Amino acid sequence: MKALVFDGSLRFRTDVPEPERPKGWARMRVRNAGICGTDLQILSGYHGYRGIPGHEFSGVVEESDETSLRGRRVVGEINVGCGHCASCRTGMERHCKDRCAMGILGLQGCMAEFCMLPDANLHALPDEIPEIRAVFVEPLSAACEILEQVPLRGSERAVVLGDGRIGILCAWVLSTVLDDVTLVGRHPAKLEAARWRCLNTCEKTGPREEDADLVVEATGGVRGLADALALCRPRGTVVLKTTVADSFLIDLAPAVVKEISIVGSRCGHFSEGLRILMNHPDMPLERLITGRYPMERGIEAFERARQRESLKVLLEIL
Amino acid sequence: MKALVFDGSLRFRTDVPEPERPKGWARMRVRNAGICGTDLQILSGYHGYRGIPGHEFSGVVEESDETSLRGRRVVGEINVGCGHCASCRTGMERHCKDRCAMGILGLQGCMAEFCMLPDANLHALPDEIPEIRAVFVEPLSAACEILEQVPLRGSERAVVLGDGRIGILCAWVLSTVLDDVTLVGRHPAKLEAARWRCLNTCEKTGPREEDADLVVEATGGVRGLADALALCRPRGTVVLKTTVADSFLIDLAPAVVKEISIVGSRCGHFSEGLRILMNHPDMPLERLITGRYPMERGIEAFERARQRESLKVLLEIL
Repeated sequence: MKALVFDGSLRFRTDVPEPERPKGWARMRVRNAGICGTDLQILSGYHGYRGIPGHEFSGVVEESDETSLRGRRVVGEINVGCGHCASCRTGMERHCKDRCAMGILGLQGCMAEFCMLPDANLHALPDEIPEIRAVFVEPLSAACEILEQVPLRGSERAVVLGDGRIGILCAWVLSTVLDDVTLVGRHPAKLEAARWRCLNTCEKTGPREEDADLVVEATGGVRGLADALALCRPRGTVVLKTTVADSFLIDLAPAVVKEISIVGSRCGHFSEGLRILMNHPDMPLERLITGRYPMERGIEAFERARQRESLKVLLEIL
Repeated sequence: MKALVFDGSLRFRTDVPEPERPKGWARMRVRNAGICGTDLQILSGYHGYRGIPGHEFSGVVEESDETSLRGRRVVGEINVGCGHCASCRTGMERHCKDRCAMGILGLQGCMAEFCMLPDANLHALPDEIPEIRAVFVEPLSAACEILEQVPLRGSERAVVLGDGRIGILCAWVLSTVLDDVTLVGRHPAKLEAARWRCLNTCEKTGPREEDADLVVEATGGVRGLADALALCRPRGTVVLKTTVADSFLIDLAPAVVKEISIVGSRCGHFSEGLRILMNHPDMPLERLITGRYPMERGIEAFERARQRESLKVLLEIL
């Protein structure tokens, strides 16, 4: 089959063997795949992953033991746990120490004609959700994770730092439950793309933002956490949604003095991302699509995704 | 009056003017004062404080507008807020931006014959609580703050890093609500002093501790947080109870990957410390007293407090 393969460098190949489906797994024909920050890190050597990259996709089930899944448009949760540990038993396969993760850790990715996941990982896509929007279910679910981790009642004032795709998605998801959300970024075009509902956008925080109940750090930069701690009110919450690639210098005394909770936040349940897609058809996800490329032009697509002004680059797999 | 005064160096003086009581405040004769880590930092120049140090004390009210307080043995909350801001209106004067703090910020401390606080800051000491134990109400309340910030149901496994006074008090307070608490330290004598109830103590963590639901970082050292993140289970909580004096290098990716909450924790409500003192008369606080000195020998007492093997040094003010 055709696939992108990373073996130290990224190549488009036409001779990749089709995957053989184990019992309980589904074989899917991939329709769209998104390039995510993690994919870019993998191509820089992160995790030492080798193989087909990609974990954001929408596809159609070709083979499955579950007759109800066959022929259905689906999205799939990317983590496959051991099934036995405390994390797996409580629905947190993503924290299983022995997990595989599609296109990231021990499991082939979705940038190929076919990909595979256990039937239990799949969610059928409701007819109302276009495939192109469904590719966003993974990062949208990651944004929804904030709602699961931080109890909110609606009146909180939130600030999101970072106008990349994750920052914008977090700001949009927070805007579905909060009236007062401000997205702070450094790229006028991205901030313009982020306008939705009553979301405030700005290039520099004002005094109004300095007593935020919730600050989401999504810059991935070394200054992000210090800025977030400065903007957060005493007893407020800072969500760490992206990571700095390595150790960095930070003074955490403000977190202790102001008794701030710093909440690490990663993936979420796809059911939550699908709920957002179903209930908010006006969320302007299409504006985040910087470009669409056929898989054959995947290397070009990755180059585009790496550019500073890019938000989301999609691969079409035909 | 007699007092210790810090004016760049610490001196014992006998010519300090007695404080004049404003309306609504109480004038107390101090009986015992504790030397705390913050006092040692202040003598190293922290906060730029000048004046009488000290904020841990028990005393007797000499003058007050409240007749019910006169002659009573009391302890006192050390923060005095503006009374108007959002923090003050919600009982969190300790987070008021314009607050004073006894012996720390804009308010004379308790290492003197007399000290003053607003009547509203005082708690009458029940007859059952000896004065010498009452001096621990401030750090005990700070330890109790963990119980207010982190919901616990009793079955959690907790690890406390750091066998200093704060680490030991946190371990003891956690032991009042949890069955499985381990204190990790580096000083056999301190770990021996910390034995109480079923508290486990060790000089090195074992594999058993590596899935802790709750880790309290009370080492104040640069390795503490990284160790805490390594010991904490996915979705668990790390409480930052002490701070490193300056910026330090840390890789926070484990906090994001494991979705750990890092909770900054400072002072607590004295009502909670008093509850512990009332309900746990067997908590061996006396074991933490490294030495007792008359105020006249205060400089010697501070030197003792600074020594590595010291836990709590008290001043007797007669």
